[in-house]
Amino acid sequence: MASITEISPFAPKHLPQMPTIGGVRFAAAEAGIKYKGRKDLMLAILDEGTTAAGTTTRSRTCSASVLWCRDQLRHGRARALVVNSGNANAFTGQKGSDAVEMTAHAAATAVGCDPQEVYISSTGVIGEPMDATGFVDLLAALAPKATGDNWQDASAAIMTTDTYPKLATTTARVGGATVKIAGFAKGSGMIAPDMATMLAYIFTDAAIEQSVLQAMTSEIVDKTFNCITVDSDTSTSDTVLVFATGRADKAQKITDAATPEAKAFREALHTVLHDLALSIVKDGEGLSKFVTIDVTGAENDRAAHRIAMAMANSPILKAAIAGEDPNWGRVVMAVGKAGEAADRDKLAIRFGPHLVAENGMRAPGYTEETGADYMKSPEIHIAVDVGIADGKATVWTCDLTHGYISINADYRS
Amino acid sequence: MASITEISPFAPKHLPQMPTIGGVRFAAAEAGIKYKGRKDLMLAILDEGTTAAGTTTRSRTCSASVLWCRDQLRHGRARALVVNSGNANAFTGQKGSDAVEMTAHAAATAVGCDPQEVYISSTGVIGEPMDATGFVDLLAALAPKATGDNWQDASAAIMTTDTYPKLATTTARVGGATVKIAGFAKGSGMIAPDMATMLAYIFTDAAIEQSVLQAMTSEIVDKTFNCITVDSDTSTSDTVLVFATGRADKAQKITDAATPEAKAFREALHTVLHDLALSIVKDGEGLSKFVTIDVTGAENDRAAHRIAMAMANSPILKAAIAGEDPNWGRVVMAVGKAGEAADRDKLAIRFGPHLVAENGMRAPGYTEETGADYMKSPEIHIAVDVGIADGKATVWTCDLTHGYISINADYRS
Repeated sequence: MASITEISPFAPKHLPQMPTIGGVRFAAAEAGIKYKGRKDLMLAILDEGTTAAGTTTRSRTCSASVLWCRDQLRHGRARALVVNSGNANAFTGQKGSDAVEMTAHAAATAVGCDPQEVYISSTGVIGEPMDATGFVDLLAALAPKATGDNWQDASAAIMTTDTYPKLATTTARVGGATVKIAGFAKGSGMIAPDMATMLAYIFTDAAIEQSVLQAMTSEIVDKTFNCITVDSDTSTSDTVLVFATGRADKAQKITDAATPEAKAFREALHTVLHDLALSIVKDGEGLSKFVTIDVTGAENDRAAHRIAMAMANSPILKAAIAGEDPNWGRVVMAVGKAGEAADRDKLAIRFGPHLVAENGMRAPGYTEETGADYMKSPEIHIAVDVGIADGKATVWTCDLTHGYISINADYRS
Repeated sequence: MASITEISPFAPKHLPQMPTIGGVRFAAAEAGIKYKGRKDLMLAILDEGTTAAGTTTRSRTCSASVLWCRDQLRHGRARALVVNSGNANAFTGQKGSDAVEMTAHAAATAVGCDPQEVYISSTGVIGEPMDATGFVDLLAALAPKATGDNWQDASAAIMTTDTYPKLATTTARVGGATVKIAGFAKGSGMIAPDMATMLAYIFTDAAIEQSVLQAMTSEIVDKTFNCITVDSDTSTSDTVLVFATGRADKAQKITDAATPEAKAFREALHTVLHDLALSIVKDGEGLSKFVTIDVTGAENDRAAHRIAMAMANSPILKAAIAGEDPNWGRVVMAVGKAGEAADRDKLAIRFGPHLVAENGMRAPGYTEETGADYMKSPEIHIAVDVGIADGKATVWTCDLTHGYISINADYRS
């Protein structure tokens, strides 16, 4: 395919200033798994005592590395993370599991830990057998080169055809200590016959009990990564992992989710996951608009989420947004197809600050010109109140453009 | 928008030879509801004693005319059908209900029946108030012009931007009588800010009890119209109506679904609904490929249907098909996201006659060239066995092309 990797219009002008995090070091290498002339293998080394929490795809055909991570998350001890791009190692049968085992053993030898303390992800083509012998030998040489400030190589090595690396960081005041939280993600780029895959890794020097970190991570992922969609297609490889080293100066261990310390940490973790989730949507395949959808007045929050996702995943509504068409009839359609209770005669729709429809019909003061003018904005906000109860949800998505079709259909042309 | 209404590559070379059906007459007129220079109002007149059965959209924001039809289907007596294109009369509040009442009364006066014996559909823009005063006056003049052979005007008047009229017909031997079944449908074309809407009307001179006809219709719609998808978006207006006049020569009334007569009629009705459903997919917005998806080996038929629909609605798989890319990794992805049981290690995938994957990985004999060659066919068949039990389902869809985006996004350009 011709070059379609124009940089997303929502790429940040500058990458954030990333901190070093006590107990975390990165290295990356060119393993030539699929891409040439770029790094495609990432190793993160974690100090002893690091705790891991995470969530993985609900796909029934998930990859061999996802299954491996799930097993290790049961104990939550972590000493290393290995990620390769170019091959998803999904639907690769016994060979796929063998590749994961081989990677875990090689990384464990390189780092000096148990294979069970190694977390592994793979992203890229599905169904292509992955030959790990091609890159596991690199891990031993890579380990001594790992440094705490090598965020750029690490975040770039996990990209497939993302148009920019996705980094986020913040700090939290936990008792007497300032802890750092920083991480990176990939997702939504594509150039080969693979699929939109989302991976995110977050590192903190906070000290926190694994069960508390896992509960927080699951809860926050539900409000961030599980509230974004580019094209409704769920990957075989989606993974979010959070690693806590406990190395912050004066770090006080968080053992109870109900304390003010836990609350401060949770808010900061939420900020980083939220930023990373939105940066994936902002690099959505072929996008021209970033879209926020708010649903209120639903039967409950779950119903609100389903209605918001029906809108965010509607090809016909997303194509209208790409065409800068204030086609609120398609919002009505998407609300209707969600299958959740909605009171047609109380439904209200807003495009940005403009009330478009209320009481089951077009708002008296609304004109097509107002809507058409608003739709020219690069960031679109659609709010719907379905008039039933107090359930609410927010989701983020992008439009559906010729770019999406080109990226996913034209690669052989 | 520039002209994007190229005729679908799957349009039939010749329209079928349509029969006259005792007790059914059609007329159509230019009401100027939205389109200029074409017929957009259709009246079908049905003889006394006609029985109606039907199914309507499950949308929670369905149109005023859908609500009206549901009410009339409770008694199932029918004397007239009025359909307009250009305005869906959906999300139009009290004005929408008023427009339906006004239409029913005008048609009842024109035909000489009860307003409750008039069935009404509207298709086109959602949310635009519909002024029925503009066309109800035409019904009185239209009624005397109705003839039994005017299928072409009738089927064309209900089109929005369909690229061809969709007609189907067959006969069945019911006891000593030969009964005719014939009908037409619209769907999947678009040129204005409206949405893909599917309507189908089927007429027969068979004599059949309403409860038996309704049960058959619901059962057959589940295997035909509910097994097609163009873009996963459910309309506010979808309606299938079957009218039985009982006027066939020597017609013997079908009162029991278990008789050989009922079976013969059911098979013929299935044929007509199947043909009409597939003709809608074959006019899917912007399509270049017609796709049949077979799922076998699922937990049950419902699970098989969900898996098949996950494939049929996957934007990334449909874009790959448009690109003639044998991207079976995206089939794996879609099976995984369906949420139904699938045994990854027993999964088998076929593209046409070619075994692509089996036992959880790429089939040994399969080559990318074989797949790429097969994907050049205009009609694509994908078969998946998920290796759990005996559930099976077939669905029909089309690919996702630049044409779809142009039709739904570019109309203002």
